Amino acid sequence: MNDDLRVSDLSEEQLLARIFPHLPVGAGTLVPPGDDAAVVAAPDGRVVVTTDVLVEDRHFRRAWSSGQDVGWRAAVQNLADVAAMGARPTSLVVALAVPGDLPVAWVEGLARGLGAVCGPLGVGVVGGDLSGGPVVVVAVAAHGDLEGRAPVLRSGARPGDVVAHAGRCGWSAAGLALLDADRADAGADAVSAHLRPTSPLDAGPAAADAGATAMLDISDGLLRDAGRMARASGVQVDLDEPGDAFAADLAGLAPAAAAVGVDPVAWVLGGGEDHGLLATFPAGTVLPAPFRRVGTVRAGTGVLVAGQMPTVAPGWDHFGG
Amino acid sequence: MNDDLRVSDLSEEQLLARIFPHLPVGAGTLVPPGDDAAVVAAPDGRVVVTTDVLVEDRHFRRAWSSGQDVGWRAAVQNLADVAAMGARPTSLVVALAVPGDLPVAWVEGLARGLGAVCGPLGVGVVGGDLSGGPVVVVAVAAHGDLEGRAPVLRSGARPGDVVAHAGRCGWSAAGLALLDADRADAGADAVSAHLRPTSPLDAGPAAADAGATAMLDISDGLLRDAGRMARASGVQVDLDEPGDAFAADLAGLAPAAAAVGVDPVAWVLGGGEDHGLLATFPAGTVLPAPFRRVGTVRAGTGVLVAGQMPTVAPGWDHFGG
Repeated sequence: MNDDLRVSDLSEEQLLARIFPHLPVGAGTLVPPGDDAAVVAAPDGRVVVTTDVLVEDRHFRRAWSSGQDVGWRAAVQNLADVAAMGARPTSLVVALAVPGDLPVAWVEGLARGLGAVCGPLGVGVVGGDLSGGPVVVVAVAAHGDLEGRAPVLRSGARPGDVVAHAGRCGWSAAGLALLDADRADAGADAVSAHLRPTSPLDAGPAAADAGATAMLDISDGLLRDAGRMARASGVQVDLDEPGDAFAADLAGLAPAAAAVGVDPVAWVLGGGEDHGLLATFPAGTVLPAPFRRVGTVRAGTGVLVAGQMPTVAPGWDHFGG
Repeated sequence: MNDDLRVSDLSEEQLLARIFPHLPVGAGTLVPPGDDAAVVAAPDGRVVVTTDVLVEDRHFRRAWSSGQDVGWRAAVQNLADVAAMGARPTSLVVALAVPGDLPVAWVEGLARGLGAVCGPLGVGVVGGDLSGGPVVVVAVAAHGDLEGRAPVLRSGARPGDVVAHAGRCGWSAAGLALLDADRADAGADAVSAHLRPTSPLDAGPAAADAGATAMLDISDGLLRDAGRMARASGVQVDLDEPGDAFAADLAGLAPAAAAVGVDPVAWVLGGGEDHGLLATFPAGTVLPAPFRRVGTVRAGTGVLVAGQMPTVAPGWDHFGG
């Protein structure tokens, strides 16, 4: 392969021809890409639909993230939204804007990253659109099948419910902090969690099957997203002491925290983009793995930490403000 | 309303609060936007899925296109892809990147433009994501319901079939040429066709019901898209003499063509983005309105015009090349 080849050296069709081989068709894909649209099976008679966009220099930097990293992350953040409804992801489509001087190998990497996440899950990459643009923009829309389940909304939490979390918490923020401080050496695991997050996608349908009353994907930080759940449900979320509830995350993040002089509790409570799932269950529910109890739903409003107002910044607003 | 208000003056949630009121929920929307994902009815057990992106200064200029124009166009180009499969559009999602200095009113206009197309059709705008970015990027993914029909692919044309077209041809290219020449006065209809194209969306399902053997949406020009159909089907598409087949379009485009000194046949054969539908039907089929016969499928390859190799440029490649 010629590593010097740039996107502007190819026609759209030539570039597509290099991307397609990396993209999985998907187990439920009835008409694959190549026509005006794809056709995907929706045997449940309903389809779960979501979209998320990654913009260069807002959500990632090319100096830190390879094309594969960005494709991986774009897939995971969208599939996590599907899982957070209690559904199994079936397909996604990708709209991509790229600068003409972007190496073709970067775009091929992006396709490989999408494929690496989707392929093993039977999720098809069933459509796409390519355009030029001043920076890389990756807009994904993902689809899922509820398989007969009622969708789990963020609005169903009730006082007395147990709050549970599946996945990692704080790792992506730690990885970003290490990259920013040029200290990637102090936490390869955290850096990897930032560049290629993993989400416990199976836990979404499992939570629905176990009777979860509310669920969402933590993309903007535990406090901020727990606050969204509290507001939508009209309840208060009282998180357990992080030193107990997130002991494993805090222990794992200790070296990174020491390297950059940060309290890792700030990452656990405020850091986004780990794409863990936060769910509530009626008291006494046997939590499906890998959910662990991290708090209690109470009557009231807002989010507390061990009964107190949190003192940590509540996560971030992607947009501005 | 404060016209000076810029996107960077608002938080993401404040901006969303200004957009949501303009967006239709959709007749088949079971869980509306506001959760991790929406849920849309897919009673047919299959869902049609497509995506298309518009990038500022590639697909539109803010000097010429209002937010409403861009929202309108983003909806139409995606819904036309759904219709071209023989399906009825049900929903779309929008990923939007916007510069911080973009007027909030522009973004509200974009939402109104999406709503103006989708609302009357019962199509829901069921999800979205907002990000900052250096230019406006509007990535839409659209979904449709085949209502029991077999999808109409571009690969089913057979020698002897009639080639038919529904919609306008050449008008968007004419409008762009007029804007480019600062002669919008010479063809308000053409300028409007460029800024807010209309697609005969009902004609897609109607063509499928009438037995169409192949269909696609003309987004990149009649010659180029007919060539895609010919290649996918392994046939030759022989278009009728444009002076006969597209007499009404050519007559309507004559003043614009005179104003900028162009042969309007070039617009009809090469111009894209009118989002008419090109379909093939078995000989003898009573064509469903508004389809008109514009050619014949023959054994062979490529596209001819009245039996001859076309002398007009074959339309455009969005990407480069």
